[in-house]
Amino acid sequence: MRKEQFHLPEGVIYLDGNSLGPMPARAVTRMNQTLQEEWGEMLIRGWNEAEWMSQPVSLADRVGALIGCPLGSVVLGDTLSVKVFQALSAALAMRPDRKVILSDTGNFPSDLYIAQGLIGSLEQDHRIKLVDPSDVEQNLSKDVAVLMLTQVDYRTGRMHDLQKITHTAHQHGIVVIWDLAHSAGAVPVDMSRSRAEFAIGCTYKYLNAGPGSPAFIYVRPDIVDQIIPALSGWLGHKAPFDFDLDYQPAPGIQRMRVGTPPILQFAALDASLSIWDGVSMKEVRERSIELSELFICEVEKRCPEFELLSPRDPQQRGSQVSFVFEHGYSVIRALIGQGVIGDFRAPNVMRFGIAPLYLDENDIHAAVEIMQDIMQREIWKRPEFQIRAAVT
Amino acid sequence: MRKEQFHLPEGVIYLDGNSLGPMPARAVTRMNQTLQEEWGEMLIRGWNEAEWMSQPVSLADRVGALIGCPLGSVVLGDTLSVKVFQALSAALAMRPDRKVILSDTGNFPSDLYIAQGLIGSLEQDHRIKLVDPSDVEQNLSKDVAVLMLTQVDYRTGRMHDLQKITHTAHQHGIVVIWDLAHSAGAVPVDMSRSRAEFAIGCTYKYLNAGPGSPAFIYVRPDIVDQIIPALSGWLGHKAPFDFDLDYQPAPGIQRMRVGTPPILQFAALDASLSIWDGVSMKEVRERSIELSELFICEVEKRCPEFELLSPRDPQQRGSQVSFVFEHGYSVIRALIGQGVIGDFRAPNVMRFGIAPLYLDENDIHAAVEIMQDIMQREIWKRPEFQIRAAVT
Repeated sequence: MRKEQFHLPEGVIYLDGNSLGPMPARAVTRMNQTLQEEWGEMLIRGWNEAEWMSQPVSLADRVGALIGCPLGSVVLGDTLSVKVFQALSAALAMRPDRKVILSDTGNFPSDLYIAQGLIGSLEQDHRIKLVDPSDVEQNLSKDVAVLMLTQVDYRTGRMHDLQKITHTAHQHGIVVIWDLAHSAGAVPVDMSRSRAEFAIGCTYKYLNAGPGSPAFIYVRPDIVDQIIPALSGWLGHKAPFDFDLDYQPAPGIQRMRVGTPPILQFAALDASLSIWDGVSMKEVRERSIELSELFICEVEKRCPEFELLSPRDPQQRGSQVSFVFEHGYSVIRALIGQGVIGDFRAPNVMRFGIAPLYLDENDIHAAVEIMQDIMQREIWKRPEFQIRAAVT
Repeated sequence: MRKEQFHLPEGVIYLDGNSLGPMPARAVTRMNQTLQEEWGEMLIRGWNEAEWMSQPVSLADRVGALIGCPLGSVVLGDTLSVKVFQALSAALAMRPDRKVILSDTGNFPSDLYIAQGLIGSLEQDHRIKLVDPSDVEQNLSKDVAVLMLTQVDYRTGRMHDLQKITHTAHQHGIVVIWDLAHSAGAVPVDMSRSRAEFAIGCTYKYLNAGPGSPAFIYVRPDIVDQIIPALSGWLGHKAPFDFDLDYQPAPGIQRMRVGTPPILQFAALDASLSIWDGVSMKEVRERSIELSELFICEVEKRCPEFELLSPRDPQQRGSQVSFVFEHGYSVIRALIGQGVIGDFRAPNVMRFGIAPLYLDENDIHAAVEIMQDIMQREIWKRPEFQIRAAVT
C-alpha cells in the first residue's frame, strides 16, 4: 500500500513490525530538519517557533484519528508503562469502593507489573484478578473496579472484542482501560463508540515511529476534567510557565502530560504519521487479513511441522500470526540469517507481524519459501542457530 | 573550551544553555547513523546489535562521571518529573514513620507538583513543608522523612551547599534527594562523597543533549536493592524477556528503568557526551566563574538599571547569572531580536546561562555591549517588544 515510503534493507522481508516498525524513508530528512533548522538554529526558541510545545497534542490528534478518538482527547509522551500507571491510578480513583483490578494472562507483562507496583504503593487492599483471556466476560462483576486488557495478545495475536467487552463491563459499573499497543495502525478501533474510559498504546510498532517513540493516552472527554493526575508534572499544569508552587491540572487531556516532550522522537513520529495520511484503516484491515490468510495457508502447506497458535478466524486475530514449534528459537534464528525477520517468544512461539503498509503477496510467498527451505534442508539444526541470545 | 564542537547560529550569542543547550556539531552525523545504519538496516536487531538495550546504563555512566557517581549507579530514561516521582516514592518508603517532605520555595515547581500528586495518591497523611532556601538547615529535624531540593535555583542561580546540607540532614536520619538539573555539567558535584541517597537531573541543559532528552536517576549503591519501585515497568524487571506475569525487580540501578528507552534521543545524547570526554569539571567551574564575574562586572558597569539577583559570591552561585529589571521581559525580547539569547521568568527576572564549553570573553563583551545599546537607545521600549508571548 505504501511500500515505497519505507526504507527496507536489501534482501530483507520484515515480519516484525509488531515489535518495531521499519523506518519511514522521510524520517531522515524530517529529523535533519528538527536538528539543523530547529534545534540548531532556533535553539530555545524552537519551543514556540517550531511548535515543539504543542506537538504532544497536535501529533496525538493524528494518532487518535487512527483509533477513533475525537480531536483533543489524546496526548503523547513518556513510555507505555508510564501511561498504564496514569490510566490505572485515575481509574482506581473513580471506583474508591471497589478493590479488584481484572486483567488476563494475555496482557503484556509490563501492564501487570505496573499494576502490582501501583497497588503496592497505595496500600489500600487492591488486588489483581488474572483470568484466562476466554474467561474475561464471565468475571465481570460489581466488585471489579477496573478492567485492564490489551486488545491484541502480544504472543498469540488473539484479539478481544473491544466493543462487546466494554459494553458488558459498563453494565457492571466497571471502568475500562484498553492497551492498544498491538491495535493502533493494525486493526480498526473506535474508541468513541466503545465509550471505554481510557486507552493507551505505543507508536513504535504498527505506527513505525522508531525505537523508543512516545506512548499515547486517550481519556474519554466527559471524564477527563475529574481526574487528579498521580503523575502531576509541570506540563500538565494549567499554566506551566507561571511557575506557581501549587499544582493545578490543565483542562482536558493536557493534564495527562508530565514532563518535557521528546522532540527528536517526535520528528520521526511526524514522518511516520505522514505515511498514514489518507490511509483507511478499513482497507489496511482487509489487506492484513488477505495477507495473513495467505501466510497461514502457505505455511501450513509447506511447513506442516508448525502449529498455528493464533486464532484461525481472522476476525479474532490482530495483524500478527504466531506458530508454535519446539525448535522455534532456532528456526527464527535461521530465518533471520536468510533475511526473513520474525521473532520468538519463549518457550516455542514464532511471531510474524503482517503490516500491509509495506508487505505484499510477493513478500509472503518469498518468506514462506525460505521457511520451507530451512525446514526441508534442516538448516535450523546448524550449531550457529542453537545459541541462545536475548531476542527482544 | 570546546566551542568548535557546537553548532552555533551565525550572529547569535547563546546565554540560555541553562534552559536548552545548543546542538553538538556531531549530533547530525550521529543521529543519521542511528537512523540509517541502525534502525533502517538492523531494524529490530538494533536492540542487540547496536546495543540500544544497554544504553540507559552505558550512557548513564558517562553522565555519572560528571557528577561523581560510581559506575553502575545511574540510569537514564523518562523525564525529570518521572524520576522525581521514583526517587520520592522510594525515599518515603524508607521512612514509613515520618510524614514530612521538606523542600524550599526555590525548588523547581514540577518537583513540588510531583510531590503533591504522589502524597495525594498515597493518602498517608504526608505533608510538604516548604521553607525559604535560607531556612532549610534550621528546619532539618527528626520528623522530616525526606529532604528534596534542587541544588541550583532555576531563577536566581543560588546554589545550596550539597555536602553540608546532606551531612546535616543525615544527622537527623533524613533521606536526601538532590535535583541536579542545573548542576550536571555546570558545577562539580560529588554524589559519592555526599552520601545522599538519590539524585535526579536532566540532560538537555548544560549537557546539551537536545529538546526532550532523557532524565537520569542516581541511587546510592548500598540502598538500591532495598527499593521496591513504584513505577515497576518491564525493563526494570530482573528478566524482562522471560515475560513472567510477576514483577521481580532487577538487581541494582536497573530496577529504576521503566519502559522502552528513547533511542533517537540517545543518539543526540551520545554526541553531546562525547564533547565532555576529557573535560575536567574543575576547569569548567573555574572558567564559569571567570566568565560570570566578567559578565556581572560589565553589566553593572554598563547597565546600572539592572539589579543582580544571583548571589554575588561565586561560590554560592551555579553557572547562571540573573538580574532583575521591571521591564525585563521587553529587554529580553529586544536582546533576542539582536541575537543575544537569554530568557525571562516572571515577574522581572532576566536569566543568563554561562556555559564555558561554548562561550568565551568575546561573547560576554559583545553581549553586554548589545545590552547597553538596548538600554541607552531605549530599544526595549519599541512596541514589538511589549507583546507577551509564552517564553519557555
